[in-house]
Amino acid sequence: MNQNNENFNESINPDFKAKKSLMRSVDEYVEGIVSGNRTILSQAITLIESSREDHKELSREILENCLDRTGNSVRIGITGVPGVGKSTFIDALGIDRIVKGDKIAVLTIDPSSSLSKGSILGDKTRMEALSVHPDAFIRPSPASGTLGGVARKTREALLLCEAAGFNIILIETVGVGQSETAVHSMVDFFLVLMLTGAGDELQGIKRGIMEMADMIAINKADGANLDSAKRAVQQIQNALALFSDRPSGWKPPVVMCSAMEGSGIIELWEKIENYVHQSRKSGYFVQKRKVQSIDWMVETIEQQLKEMFYKHPDVKRHLMDFENKVNEGTISSFKAASELIKLFESKKS
Amino acid sequence: MNQNNENFNESINPDFKAKKSLMRSVDEYVEGIVSGNRTILSQAITLIESSREDHKELSREILENCLDRTGNSVRIGITGVPGVGKSTFIDALGIDRIVKGDKIAVLTIDPSSSLSKGSILGDKTRMEALSVHPDAFIRPSPASGTLGGVARKTREALLLCEAAGFNIILIETVGVGQSETAVHSMVDFFLVLMLTGAGDELQGIKRGIMEMADMIAINKADGANLDSAKRAVQQIQNALALFSDRPSGWKPPVVMCSAMEGSGIIELWEKIENYVHQSRKSGYFVQKRKVQSIDWMVETIEQQLKEMFYKHPDVKRHLMDFENKVNEGTISSFKAASELIKLFESKKS
Repeated sequence: MNQNNENFNESINPDFKAKKSLMRSVDEYVEGIVSGNRTILSQAITLIESSREDHKELSREILENCLDRTGNSVRIGITGVPGVGKSTFIDALGIDRIVKGDKIAVLTIDPSSSLSKGSILGDKTRMEALSVHPDAFIRPSPASGTLGGVARKTREALLLCEAAGFNIILIETVGVGQSETAVHSMVDFFLVLMLTGAGDELQGIKRGIMEMADMIAINKADGANLDSAKRAVQQIQNALALFSDRPSGWKPPVVMCSAMEGSGIIELWEKIENYVHQSRKSGYFVQKRKVQSIDWMVETIEQQLKEMFYKHPDVKRHLMDFENKVNEGTISSFKAASELIKLFESKKS
Repeated sequence: MNQNNENFNESINPDFKAKKSLMRSVDEYVEGIVSGNRTILSQAITLIESSREDHKELSREILENCLDRTGNSVRIGITGVPGVGKSTFIDALGIDRIVKGDKIAVLTIDPSSSLSKGSILGDKTRMEALSVHPDAFIRPSPASGTLGGVARKTREALLLCEAAGFNIILIETVGVGQSETAVHSMVDFFLVLMLTGAGDELQGIKRGIMEMADMIAINKADGANLDSAKRAVQQIQNALALFSDRPSGWKPPVVMCSAMEGSGIIELWEKIENYVHQSRKSGYFVQKRKVQSIDWMVETIEQQLKEMFYKHPDVKRHLMDFENKVNEGTISSFKAASELIKLFESKKS
């Protein structure tokens, strides 16, 4: 059994498995991560995903102690509808980069994964080459929680992967709900994979995706698909022209590739490197990361405030009651909110 | 000077003007509002818009006491780009309905209005017929605050207008930023006005608007515009067909009108009445309002939590410091958030 499969098994039941790993000290974790030990990295991520308070505390300490080793990667978000070939694409791109000397970590954000654990195993198996390569680390989505929680865990895992020396982090999203927005908020570059179709290439695009994309790649541009892929490129370029300029000055390219044939992948990566070079030179790269960090701080604060509120015993006891009154129209939404806030304020949990 | 102009002057400086109206008791306000006294209604809305704590308290009491008179209106949101003719349209529709015996209140949400007070006066003047009619009440956007704050005040004003007997509430948004989403969250029916253009009718649509629209009306469908308006209707119908079905089962119609000529307005209103009839019958109308009320409660709670947090003296004192550390990368976003939360928790403001 290879290391990655072991990682995967641990993620199935983080609370149970993490007990074992609790035996380690913070220093042992940090040293293990920094030395690139994937088993320890994986156990630390399991701690991040645990809902136990002592695990949370421990994982925070690990993270703080790894912090000065983070930041040295290119963070790339990848999205696309199911069937677009994300796993095959990531497999092809990842192996290409590993051959050039890079180390690749692949994380996934899938808020629906708690409902469909099966597909994670499927995804993992499909990254055939990467999943057995010593310079790759694949970690499926945290298997439970709200999008906000899943995203926070993934971002913390990303930092640990950087500390472990992975210099390219791919964050895959399944394109469900708002998961793209979460991924977009933690990456340097956002890649949208698309399929060519029968003349209506733009229908499959979710609202808001075009504005987020730093590049659009038509995958499966091979064989009989090649002509319609070329038309799709043209259509999407026309559509992109309608959007206003990016603050970075970057014009998102539209490219074709075939992960199956391995064509277009090298050219696509060159464009990503161009972007990184260009945006580092202009200062936009660093600026964007700073804004993302502050955004994450603010978001974490707001999440914790809400948690504190809804966990407060008096709020818990009366919330349903106030909701019923609002529904019956005997109290306004504003009054109900004020009363609940008063309960929260009067006696600190 | 007519009553509406007086209302308008008061809204310029709510804090100052509200002092006078503070002389009234809660009962006097409530009786005045319920009897349809527009001057008192206007003063009560001014209290809602005031930032003084005693005014807030008073306005909440007024609202609670009016609550059993609310809910008896059709709430309609209207949006469209500047120049689409919203004011002329509202004027034409409003007078049409008043002739049939309805009472119309027009509220505006414009988070940018604090920057451009001039345009409010302009808008108001353009509703020539409505602004001088005794069965109409026009209130410009609260002149300051975040979108969340402006939206809350507008929703409270909406409830007071209902208590005052207005049975059609039109809420206009200028289509800036996220104001449509705010309006959509407080209305029964969302109407999008559009202009016909030179072959590219769909370009002007902001993302997400199509999903919110319960009807799309091509305004200025008159004279030389008529042919291109017909093409626009067809184009938009095709585009709408790409979206999934509404939970209400309603299929948003696309219509033409000319507010200037007065054509199409009656037909448009009939479709709105159809919607109201249909959705009341199915129970969707009531269900949607309940969901909106709970959403407003939750949103108000979250706003107040944030306010409490950012007003906390220790948080205020250290926030900038933590932001700097996050920017320098000497502390993680999560750690900074936790530390700030600890400050907030340890000593209650």
